[in-house]
Amino acid sequence: MSLGIVFLSEVMGTMMLTLLGCGVVANVALKGSKGLAGGTLMVNWGWGLAVMAGVFVAAKSGAHLNPAVTVGILSSGADEYAPNVAVSFASTLTYFGAEMVGAFIGAVVCWLAYKQHFDAEPVAANKLGVFSTGPAIRSYGWNVVTEIVGTFVLVFIILHFGGGVAGLGPLPVALLVVGIGASLGGPTGYAINPARDLGPRIAHALLPIKGKGSSDWSYAWVPVVGPLIGGALGGLMTQWMPDLLAAAA
Amino acid sequence: MSLGIVFLSEVMGTMMLTLLGCGVVANVALKGSKGLAGGTLMVNWGWGLAVMAGVFVAAKSGAHLNPAVTVGILSSGADEYAPNVAVSFASTLTYFGAEMVGAFIGAVVCWLAYKQHFDAEPVAANKLGVFSTGPAIRSYGWNVVTEIVGTFVLVFIILHFGGGVAGLGPLPVALLVVGIGASLGGPTGYAINPARDLGPRIAHALLPIKGKGSSDWSYAWVPVVGPLIGGALGGLMTQWMPDLLAAAA
Amino acid sequence: MSLGIVFLSEVMGTMMLTLLGCGVVANVALKGSKGLAGGTLMVNWGWGLAVMAGVFVAAKSGAHLNPAVTVGILSSGADEYAPNVAVSFASTLTYFGAEMVGAFIGAVVCWLAYKQHFDAEPVAANKLGVFSTGPAIRSYGWNVVTEIVGTFVLVFIILHFGGGVAGLGPLPVALLVVGIGASLGGPTGYAINPARDLGPRIAHALLPIKGKGSSDWSYAWVPVVGPLIGGALGGLMTQWMPDLLAAAA
Amino acid sequence: MSLGIVFLSEVMGTMMLTLLGCGVVANVALKGSKGLAGGTLMVNWGWGLAVMAGVFVAAKSGAHLNPAVTVGILSSGADEYAPNVAVSFASTLTYFGAEMVGAFIGAVVCWLAYKQHFDAEPVAANKLGVFSTGPAIRSYGWNVVTEIVGTFVLVFIILHFGGGVAGLGPLPVALLVVGIGASLGGPTGYAINPARDLGPRIAHALLPIKGKGSSDWSYAWVPVVGPLIGGALGGLMTQWMPDLLAAAA
Repeated sequence: MSLGIVFLSEVMGTMMLTLLGCGVVANVALKGSKGLAGGTLMVNWGWGLAVMAGVFVAAKSGAHLNPAVTVGILSSGADEYAPNVAVSFASTLTYFGAEMVGAFIGAVVCWLAYKQHFDAEPVAANKLGVFSTGPAIRSYGWNVVTEIVGTFVLVFIILHFGGGVAGLGPLPVALLVVGIGASLGGPTGYAINPARDLGPRIAHALLPIKGKGSSDWSYAWVPVVGPLIGGALGGLMTQWMPDLLAAAA
Repeated sequence: MSLGIVFLSEVMGTMMLTLLGCGVVANVALKGSKGLAGGTLMVNWGWGLAVMAGVFVAAKSGAHLNPAVTVGILSSGADEYAPNVAVSFASTLTYFGAEMVGAFIGAVVCWLAYKQHFDAEPVAANKLGVFSTGPAIRSYGWNVVTEIVGTFVLVFIILHFGGGVAGLGPLPVALLVVGIGASLGGPTGYAINPARDLGPRIAHALLPIKGKGSSDWSYAWVPVVGPLIGGALGGLMTQWMPDLLAAAA
Repeated sequence: MSLGIVFLSEVMGTMMLTLLGCGVVANVALKGSKGLAGGTLMVNWGWGLAVMAGVFVAAKSGAHLNPAVTVGILSSGADEYAPNVAVSFASTLTYFGAEMVGAFIGAVVCWLAYKQHFDAEPVAANKLGVFSTGPAIRSYGWNVVTEIVGTFVLVFIILHFGGGVAGLGPLPVALLVVGIGASLGGPTGYAINPARDLGPRIAHALLPIKGKGSSDWSYAWVPVVGPLIGGALGGLMTQWMPDLLAAAA
Repeated sequence: MSLGIVFLSEVMGTMMLTLLGCGVVANVALKGSKGLAGGTLMVNWGWGLAVMAGVFVAAKSGAHLNPAVTVGILSSGADEYAPNVAVSFASTLTYFGAEMVGAFIGAVVCWLAYKQHFDAEPVAANKLGVFSTGPAIRSYGWNVVTEIVGTFVLVFIILHFGGGVAGLGPLPVALLVVGIGASLGGPTGYAINPARDLGPRIAHALLPIKGKGSSDWSYAWVPVVGPLIGGALGGLMTQWMPDLLAAAA
């Protein structure tokens, strides 16, 4: 498969992911929306099903949708990112770029779909919360730890089955994301995906959102660095486990 | 397959869709109902599983259940609406007609199932809300945008897999609708289906519902036009993507 | 398959169904329980997954678990209730008897599991509500209509796929029951199964439940007659539809 | 398969189970967490999906993740705990040990992920509740009964299909656990797994958790003994049912 197809596939898939993912937060958080105060479980389902939608769309390219997944596959020592997509410097950059571009576009479309509610919402922090994650208790060290743990769970389980996200199937991946959100989302809002957080944050910074306030750039590195570490650990652990298992056998 | 079978299949499936879909709104909204104030997530699940039920029933005819899906398949350039159902002027009208008739019947049966609660409910707007969607903030232009986005997501993902709704399978389609509702339902209540909105609205206008108030015909074109545009865009995008991919390759 | 195996299979399956189904109501309704006020959607999921559990256990006998399903298969004109279980007077009675016995046992075990909370609960109606359904607004005629509609949806969809409940698969049946509960459970609490309602009601009458109050026998016929009519209509409609389809073709 | 692989597989799987399972309780219970007051249904989904995650990871060793499942397979008279893992004294101890070690590690990682919220939470009982179960109404006899019933349902259904947890598939097992939690979790918080309760309780006792209070050792035997009895009954019933069925035939 050409890297152009990979790029387009991942852009479309990650666009779906942030359109629907940011959308569910808009629905429960912005003034006047019908889902206002819909609750945490609704947000967990919304994000999980957003991933499902993205996986359906990007199945052809392995549906990474997430630089942490790309890094996890890389660090696992795999040869391919998806069937007929060899691991290389160029393909790695293609995934990273497509994930960022897609995440950015999805956030822009989400803003359009909720335009009136962004205008009506008086609290700037609620608007940023639709785009990007933030800590419940700010403490960069512990926030990074939480993001590492959540992303490790995501990537380790996905890699445990080979073939990337698409190999596991859209529905189990969706449920896995619902579960990680419900279980490990409390402290940081589970970015577990650098593109999902940084792409929409850039959109927040660039879009003419009424009364939008700060894009909180001081926190922006946490949901990038934490997930990349967690994804790399997931990949290394996957690579290391069979050796350990072999030794144990 | 004869168009008579297509008609009957789509009538029965769309009837199930609006019977259960309108039903969950009745359950959470009408006075005295056991599910009163059951919450947005319950409504999202109810509509998603209503679609699942309809897809099971109408699998034989491709389970469009939705003129926006029919339009999406048409604009994607496909030859068939379902296995052995050729795209033609007659078959297109058959789908449209069956979807409208089924949606109307389902709303009537829903009214019968909740008859006492319609009688007990004092707020006219809550009664109309069982039948048809309405905007959280009325602004026809932005309301249309939201409906276009939601329907585009629905139709693009369904078409991405070929074979219509039934080709994707009842369960993923149900979850997709749960996800679209949770994520993009905030501003307009996600009609994403002209028949689902217009059929029950006609039922609301014709049925002798106690204290029913206005059928809000001034808004009625939004959940028809928005979904048709969104569905057509989903179909065109599906048709255009492989070309782009080929060019990129 | 011998009718003894059918009996045992349906007893075990229906026992699971009412143990878990009555259990979720106990969890949300009885004083001191951890799930108190867990909400309608939790009850819908609990009952749906109770059906899933029962279908797993009773797959061998077709997993009717419900006289309305048995009646629906009968009225559909099928030859077999399950693979190698012919439709006959004896097998029909075997299903009916097993469904009632299993539903009774499950309710007794549920009472034991929640014994302390039954003792602690001061409101008699909440105790009966764990065992059997009751109307939100009492009106026997309309209550019967609601039960007919809900059971028709259940049986028509199940029969639409042949092979009984087990033929459709445990997960879709579970989701179908979640959906019917969310959408049509508002007026009567969706018995949609005479054994599920009458078996536990008999248990309520016989068990030495502290401060249990009336078993509301005046309503007891509604969730028996309504579902039987709905199931029969579902079966007849299934039988009649192919003829209509053939005529239309 | 070597017992070393079995050990590692079950450690990793049970670690996932308690990391995510304890995590969802932390999310809804600890001060400042984003999921605070997320509700019972969210906890049920969190634990169910935690089991799903564990089953994915430990599929190779049959994904017991639970001494009650191991005991159930043993008492069912099966020859193997998983494909190529013979039932023996050594393999039984391997499963037990791995389940305990994994459950302990998962609880430790959960504490790290929610470290700041454990520090912020003023109520000691809420902290223990993240790690281990406790009774809604303390009465050791009835609490054991509830745990027996819940674990019997779990193990009987799993064994009814052969091949252990992995044989049933990760998704149905997850849903089964959601259902048991929703339906039978009210009185005791559904340990239904001695390792899930005892491993984290030991972690609670050993970790330097700020203001942690008692580990409630007087109750600790209930969620060990109850599930072991329930699992054994599930196994014996499975063994006994085919004989009864044969006799009935």
